Amino acid sequence: MGTIGYVETQRVVLATECDPLVLTSGAVLEHVEVAYETYGVLNEARDNAVMVCHALTGDAHAAGLHLGAKKRGWWDNLIGPGKAVDTDRFFVVSANLLGGCSGTTGPASIDPATGRVHGPDFPLLDMADFVAVHRRLLDHLGIGRLHAAVGGSLGGMQVLEWALEEPDRIDRAVVVAASSRLTTENIAFSAVARAAILEDPDFHGGRYAEHGVAPRHGLKVARMMAHVTYVSGQSLAEKFGHARDTSGTGKRLAADFEVEHYLQHQGESFLQRFDALSYLHLTRPMDYFDPFAAHPDVVPSTRFRLVSFDSDWRFPTAHSLRIRDQLLARGVAVDHTEVVSPWGHDSFLLEPPGYHDLVRSFLG
Amino acid sequence: MGTIGYVETQRVVLATECDPLVLTSGAVLEHVEVAYETYGVLNEARDNAVMVCHALTGDAHAAGLHLGAKKRGWWDNLIGPGKAVDTDRFFVVSANLLGGCSGTTGPASIDPATGRVHGPDFPLLDMADFVAVHRRLLDHLGIGRLHAAVGGSLGGMQVLEWALEEPDRIDRAVVVAASSRLTTENIAFSAVARAAILEDPDFHGGRYAEHGVAPRHGLKVARMMAHVTYVSGQSLAEKFGHARDTSGTGKRLAADFEVEHYLQHQGESFLQRFDALSYLHLTRPMDYFDPFAAHPDVVPSTRFRLVSFDSDWRFPTAHSLRIRDQLLARGVAVDHTEVVSPWGHDSFLLEPPGYHDLVRSFLG
Repeated sequence: MGTIGYVETQRVVLATECDPLVLTSGAVLEHVEVAYETYGVLNEARDNAVMVCHALTGDAHAAGLHLGAKKRGWWDNLIGPGKAVDTDRFFVVSANLLGGCSGTTGPASIDPATGRVHGPDFPLLDMADFVAVHRRLLDHLGIGRLHAAVGGSLGGMQVLEWALEEPDRIDRAVVVAASSRLTTENIAFSAVARAAILEDPDFHGGRYAEHGVAPRHGLKVARMMAHVTYVSGQSLAEKFGHARDTSGTGKRLAADFEVEHYLQHQGESFLQRFDALSYLHLTRPMDYFDPFAAHPDVVPSTRFRLVSFDSDWRFPTAHSLRIRDQLLARGVAVDHTEVVSPWGHDSFLLEPPGYHDLVRSFLG
Repeated sequence: MGTIGYVETQRVVLATECDPLVLTSGAVLEHVEVAYETYGVLNEARDNAVMVCHALTGDAHAAGLHLGAKKRGWWDNLIGPGKAVDTDRFFVVSANLLGGCSGTTGPASIDPATGRVHGPDFPLLDMADFVAVHRRLLDHLGIGRLHAAVGGSLGGMQVLEWALEEPDRIDRAVVVAASSRLTTENIAFSAVARAAILEDPDFHGGRYAEHGVAPRHGLKVARMMAHVTYVSGQSLAEKFGHARDTSGTGKRLAADFEVEHYLQHQGESFLQRFDALSYLHLTRPMDYFDPFAAHPDVVPSTRFRLVSFDSDWRFPTAHSLRIRDQLLARGVAVDHTEVVSPWGHDSFLLEPPGYHDLVRSFLG
C-alpha cells in the first residue's frame, strides 16, 4: 500500500445568476463555489468514480498532503493506492459541503449580490441541499453513475439522502456511523451546542464578522462538549486516566487533569479552522433529517453496506439497524456490521480491526 | 402518609474568628454561616437524627413548604410523616453546602474581614470540607451519633466521605446514584461546564459581582449540558419525541423542537437561583474525590445501602459496585440494588418502583 502524494484543492463555480441553486426551503443562492479534491484517474468508461462525503467538521481535503503541510487528509488511512478506497482503481471525489467554511460557499463567504458576507442572511439548509451541490459537481466532472458513495456520520446521512433522491445514480453506498433520524437526545446535545454559539454575546445576531469579532467562547464550548460525545468513556480513561498537573492537596479550579488540557486544546484549535455560523448551518439539517419519510415510495437500485461501532454512543448501532430495516422493507439490498472498536463515534475516522476490509470488499 | 406543612430555613454561625474553619487545603474561613432545616422532633435519647445531604444544585429546603411558595422541598416525596424517611419517627436535618449560594457561606457571601464578597478569593473546597460543616452543625444541634445519613449523587459522596472520616458516628448510610471516583468521562463533562463559566467574558476572573454582571451565558450552557446528562435518552424521547413548533419545510436555527425549549427553560431558570462561582466550587471537589485512597485503613461501623438506577449514564451502576467492593474488602456491611427506572441520574429525586421502599426498610 502506498500513499497519495501532494494534492491541491480545486474550486469550481456550480451556481450562477443564470443557473441559481434553488434550495429545499425555496431560498435561492445565485453564486455557489465548491472546493473539491480528486484522487486517482477517471477511466474512459467514466464508471469508476467514488464520492466521499465528509462529516460535520471535515473538508475537501480527505487524502494526501497539501504542499507545505504536515497533516494528511482526514480519511488518508482509507483512501490511497492499494487502500480500502483504492486510488489505483477508483477516481475519488471529495467536496467541502455547502454551508461550510473550507472553500465552499457558506455563511462566511461574500455574497456577490451585496459585496458583503452572507452572515445570518445565509439560508437554512437541508440535507438535500448538500446533495444537490454534490450532484452538480458530478455533472461538472462528467460523471453519471457513481461506482460508490461513501460517508461517515453526517457524510453517511448525505449518502443515504442521495440514494433516495437519485435511486439510479449510485451503485454502492457505504454508510458508516450514521442515522436516518436523530433521537431526542441527539437533538438535545446539538441544541446545547447551538445555544452556546447563538447566545454568545459576540454572536451579534450572526453579524459578528461586521463587528470584527467571533463567538469564540460559544464555539469553543460547543466543540469541547461535542468532542466528549464523539469518543468513548473507555478511550478517555485509557488515554488520560486521572493524570493531572497538581498532586496531593494541590488542586485548582482551572484545568488540571490531562483530559481537561486535551479538551481545551480541541476547543482552541477548532477556532482556527471553523466558522460559528457554518457550525450552526451544518448541524441543524441533521436534527430535521428524516429521509425515509421524505421519500416514502423510492426504491433505490443502490446496494448498501452499513457499519456501526459498538462503543459509539452518539449514533449507536440502533441507528444503523433502523436504516437497515427501512431499506429491507423496501426490498433494497443491504447488510450491516457492528464493528468492535474502543473509540466511540470517532471510530469511523480510525482503523478498528475489520472496518476497512468491510469497505474494501464492498467496493469490489 | 401525610406531608410536612410550612417550614422555615434557619441560620447558624458555625465558624468565627475564634473558632475558624480550617479547610483541607490549609485555607481558613473565619466566618461560616449555615442555612438548614429540620423536620420532625429530636427524641430525648437524641438517637433518631437523620442527616440528608443534597446534590450539586440542591439547598437546605429538602421537604415541606415555605410560606408563600408553591413548590415543595426537593426531596419532599421521600421525607415526611409516614414516608420513607418518616418524620413521625426521625428528626431530619438538611443543610445547604459550604460553598453554596442558598444561605450557607459561599463565594457570593460577604467576607466580614473585607466587607466585600469572597468572589474568586473563596478557597477551593474538598469533600471533607462539606462534611466538616455538617459535623459542626450536628454538634451545634447536640446530636452525637446519627441514626442515618442519606444522600444522592454529590449528596451520597458526602455520606461516604463522612462515614470514612468519622467511622463511629453514622449507624446507617444510604448512598444513592453516587461515586467514589469519577471516571475520566465524568471529569470531561465537568470540565466543559466549568470552561463555559470560567471563559465567559462576563466572568471577569471571578470578580463579576464587582462589575455588576454575571457569566450568565456560560452558566446557562453549563446547566443545559449537565441536564442532558442527568436524564436518559428514553425519558427525553418519551417526553418530547420530535415535536416542534414549525412543520414541513418551515425550519429555523433558533429553538424549534420541544426538547430545545425545555433545555432553554432549564438553563434560564437555573440563572435565577444559582451562582456561577458556587457551581465551580461545588463541582470541582467531585473531580478530585477519592475517599478510599484518602482513608486507606478506616473501617466504618456504618452499615451501607447503595442504590443505583439502570438508566443512569452519568453515574452508572458500575460506580456503586466499586463502592460496594471497596467496602466489602474492608469487611463493612453493605448491600446494593440496581433499581429499574427510565429517568436516568435524576431518578434519585423521583420515585421509581422499589426505590423508596429500599430507603424505608433500611432506616428500620
